[in-house]
Amino acid sequence: MVLTINLYQKAGGGFLATENILQEFADIDRIFDPKSIAIIGVSSEGLGFGRSIFISHRSIGYEGKLYPVNKRGGSIEGMKIYSSIEAIPDKIDFAIIAVPAHLVPSALEACRSKGVVGAEILSSGFSETGTPEGIALEEELKTIAKKGIRLIGPNCFGIYCPKSGLTMLPGPDLSRKPGSVALLSQSGGLSVDFGYIGKWRGIHFSKIISFGNGCDLRETEMLRYLRHDPETRVICVYIEGVADGRDFFTALKEVAAEKPVIIIKGGLSESGSRAAASHTASLGGNKAIWEAALRQCHVTQVENLEEMSDVALTFSLLPPREYKGCAVMGGGGALGIAAADTAEPYGIKVPSLRKDLQEAILEVLPKPGSSATNPVDIANPYVSPKYIREILLYASQDENIDFHIVIQLLYHYKALQLNLGNVKLGEITPYKELAKVCREAMDIGKKPVMLILPNIRRDEDDLEIEEVNRETRRLFTEAGMPVFDSVKNAFNAVASISRYYRYRR
Amino acid sequence: MVLTINLYQKAGGGFLATENILQEFADIDRIFDPKSIAIIGVSSEGLGFGRSIFISHRSIGYEGKLYPVNKRGGSIEGMKIYSSIEAIPDKIDFAIIAVPAHLVPSALEACRSKGVVGAEILSSGFSETGTPEGIALEEELKTIAKKGIRLIGPNCFGIYCPKSGLTMLPGPDLSRKPGSVALLSQSGGLSVDFGYIGKWRGIHFSKIISFGNGCDLRETEMLRYLRHDPETRVICVYIEGVADGRDFFTALKEVAAEKPVIIIKGGLSESGSRAAASHTASLGGNKAIWEAALRQCHVTQVENLEEMSDVALTFSLLPPREYKGCAVMGGGGALGIAAADTAEPYGIKVPSLRKDLQEAILEVLPKPGSSATNPVDIANPYVSPKYIREILLYASQDENIDFHIVIQLLYHYKALQLNLGNVKLGEITPYKELAKVCREAMDIGKKPVMLILPNIRRDEDDLEIEEVNRETRRLFTEAGMPVFDSVKNAFNAVASISRYYRYRR
Repeated sequence: MVLTINLYQKAGGGFLATENILQEFADIDRIFDPKSIAIIGVSSEGLGFGRSIFISHRSIGYEGKLYPVNKRGGSIEGMKIYSSIEAIPDKIDFAIIAVPAHLVPSALEACRSKGVVGAEILSSGFSETGTPEGIALEEELKTIAKKGIRLIGPNCFGIYCPKSGLTMLPGPDLSRKPGSVALLSQSGGLSVDFGYIGKWRGIHFSKIISFGNGCDLRETEMLRYLRHDPETRVICVYIEGVADGRDFFTALKEVAAEKPVIIIKGGLSESGSRAAASHTASLGGNKAIWEAALRQCHVTQVENLEEMSDVALTFSLLPPREYKGCAVMGGGGALGIAAADTAEPYGIKVPSLRKDLQEAILEVLPKPGSSATNPVDIANPYVSPKYIREILLYASQDENIDFHIVIQLLYHYKALQLNLGNVKLGEITPYKELAKVCREAMDIGKKPVMLILPNIRRDEDDLEIEEVNRETRRLFTEAGMPVFDSVKNAFNAVASISRYYRYRR
Repeated sequence: MVLTINLYQKAGGGFLATENILQEFADIDRIFDPKSIAIIGVSSEGLGFGRSIFISHRSIGYEGKLYPVNKRGGSIEGMKIYSSIEAIPDKIDFAIIAVPAHLVPSALEACRSKGVVGAEILSSGFSETGTPEGIALEEELKTIAKKGIRLIGPNCFGIYCPKSGLTMLPGPDLSRKPGSVALLSQSGGLSVDFGYIGKWRGIHFSKIISFGNGCDLRETEMLRYLRHDPETRVICVYIEGVADGRDFFTALKEVAAEKPVIIIKGGLSESGSRAAASHTASLGGNKAIWEAALRQCHVTQVENLEEMSDVALTFSLLPPREYKGCAVMGGGGALGIAAADTAEPYGIKVPSLRKDLQEAILEVLPKPGSSATNPVDIANPYVSPKYIREILLYASQDENIDFHIVIQLLYHYKALQLNLGNVKLGEITPYKELAKVCREAMDIGKKPVMLILPNIRRDEDDLEIEEVNRETRRLFTEAGMPVFDSVKNAFNAVASISRYYRYRR
């Protein structure tokens, strides 16, 4: 196994160390791919966490065995609810615990006794409360963990792993399509939000781990795990506070040298730090120090989930390299100007195209009102995809162009629809052909295409536009072309990727 | 008339000057409220500008008289097309010209002879082409204008004035609800986009003027007009280049001392400036100089249309004052932390609430998992509006709180819907009650409420969520509470407003 040799060499020899690491990783591997799950705290009715996570696993189509547990017994969706974990006649790989905080230690101890490898604890009411009782309860969990069971949580939303069908709270309808992006997050809400964003943006996940208070498994160990996880190529992290700063940054540096890491650091303001303390009992830390340290580790720091999505999507779809020059194509002069103005602060150039290419493009463009320099102004939003293909192919021949930004204002077809009368918007909007020609131009021209799909018409009676935009976005991302709401988001993402691969060069 | 006295005093006396200004404004007033319009270049069929703007005026319900003109005659929508402007038997206030560039001068001269007060020229092919022919054609227009007709354009999308029913290209379905925000724009595309954005964001317009190449009426004169326009309270400007820099900044300073001005300056990058030259024949200018000059004029510079919308909406809805301290309410710890982290760089504080108020709020909150400091973490997205009302009222009592940010993740009701079975999302999402209680809390507590309505579920089968969000947004803005996609956008807007009113104080 390549991984073993690699680790062995990096550790500077020592059979025992290597074996321990592999053993530890094997346990974590089993957590992500359990053959059987016990869910402790499943009521027959209501909207509790236990019942909700049970239904979510049924909805998402988890193929292993599910065992609902509740001391009151009963049944759920035609399945018997076991009165205790001990009463389950089968071997259990993984447990999901969703009982009130004071009952968690005994439930966990029962899991350990039964030989469960790992457990996620959804319940809150531990160290994040700041109360002596909460802190003591969490200490109990740590003590049990040390006796031989790995923990995710407490105060978390659990694990989402599309490949194995493990899902998080509330996640009944997250995607089952596996991918190469991982998220490691102290926040549950942010974890599940990222899962849902990925579904429509075309970000596919190896795993999402919401670890909450992180009383056992947390940022540093999981980072090292993800470094060696063959299913993960891009690592996203949401962190409020770390258990061991020095070790965390050592791990971060090692990991970022091999795989891109994107981080949101929450709690860097005075009031944000105060909020983090009551959220996951974390200490915020100094903003300037954090930012400098992250930069030194060659980690991409982002501000929010939208930016994380932009960057993760771009890392997962674009070939790994630096991107300098961009060809911008849009209908309407102000659009192109705005794109050019936006590119500059990100260090991205929008250079004039080569004279012969400009002339060739001018032949294709509608006149007057168009411009072939760069940004290319196609003058109106109804230019046929076949011309867009030609323009992309010409611009691709310019050696100063590394990628394309195509801005499409598909909402303008609504005006056309009003003119034409009784037609469906999806039928008159040539979005299918558009995705096809852009992909072709990318294949022939060898320069990535990024689509900007703004929607300035978001009125209540304009849902049809949203529908067409969503279908367009799916077609583009399925064809490997990332789609953004704005040029700013796209340039920011490309700049992040360029910065990373410049360092890796 | 108060306006006269005011002007008279500012001009330092001089009856003639005052009368001239009023006369000039009277002409412009008539352009925005014409009783009769001739549209020159209307074909019986096709998708040309002339036909399109004619249909748009019919669709939007312009109440004055419309006279389509085309030398080939014919009819459109049951109306006779006149073969020339001279052939129209009626008096014409305003003309819309959409014939090929070389035919524009004679059409314009005919309008002037007939006594038309003003004309907008939609045709392109003038100075923006950079050709001697284009430049010469535009000079001809200027000569005719000087003989006594005011011009908007050429190379523009025209005027939108919801009160009078004047609409721009392609604008058949812009809103007819008048408001207090004006836009003065060198770009047509951006003008009509802003019109459509206003429709769903709740920004209502006094007028939008797309002036394109601006061979007669343009930025400086129109700024002075808008300063005195009683229907305009907030002035937005999109500018690529100005005809007279010194005069423009003098006007800008005068205007901004009385009404907030929000500007996008296009073409401040090297490539953006090149693009602006071919778009409206404008010279871009130096970025640092422009930004310093705008700051000195106390103008709010924004980067793009989304930011302009955020700021214009907030200026139009919030009471004119400085806002320092903010109470943030959201479900999920990371959300609140992110909000607090985002507020700080904008100079907005998220202070701990007074101890007694925290205790009162804690009584109302679900437990565990919630937090009452500030940000207030309501722990889950299903907290009833009646509790949200109470929390807002308590937080309003804190003297350090100037406004509220309420983050609502209504998309979570989709999970509830999946649990409940056959119910409509709009029926189980308490958005109507939410808008009602927020407005009540604002009335009683006297602190503005701003709603953040993210939608992380934008999948093709999640259109129902979008529908609920759109209806929620409408209810809130109709009730005077601005709605934003993200906390960052909201804080940026509040910070802009605070900066402006600090200066005006």
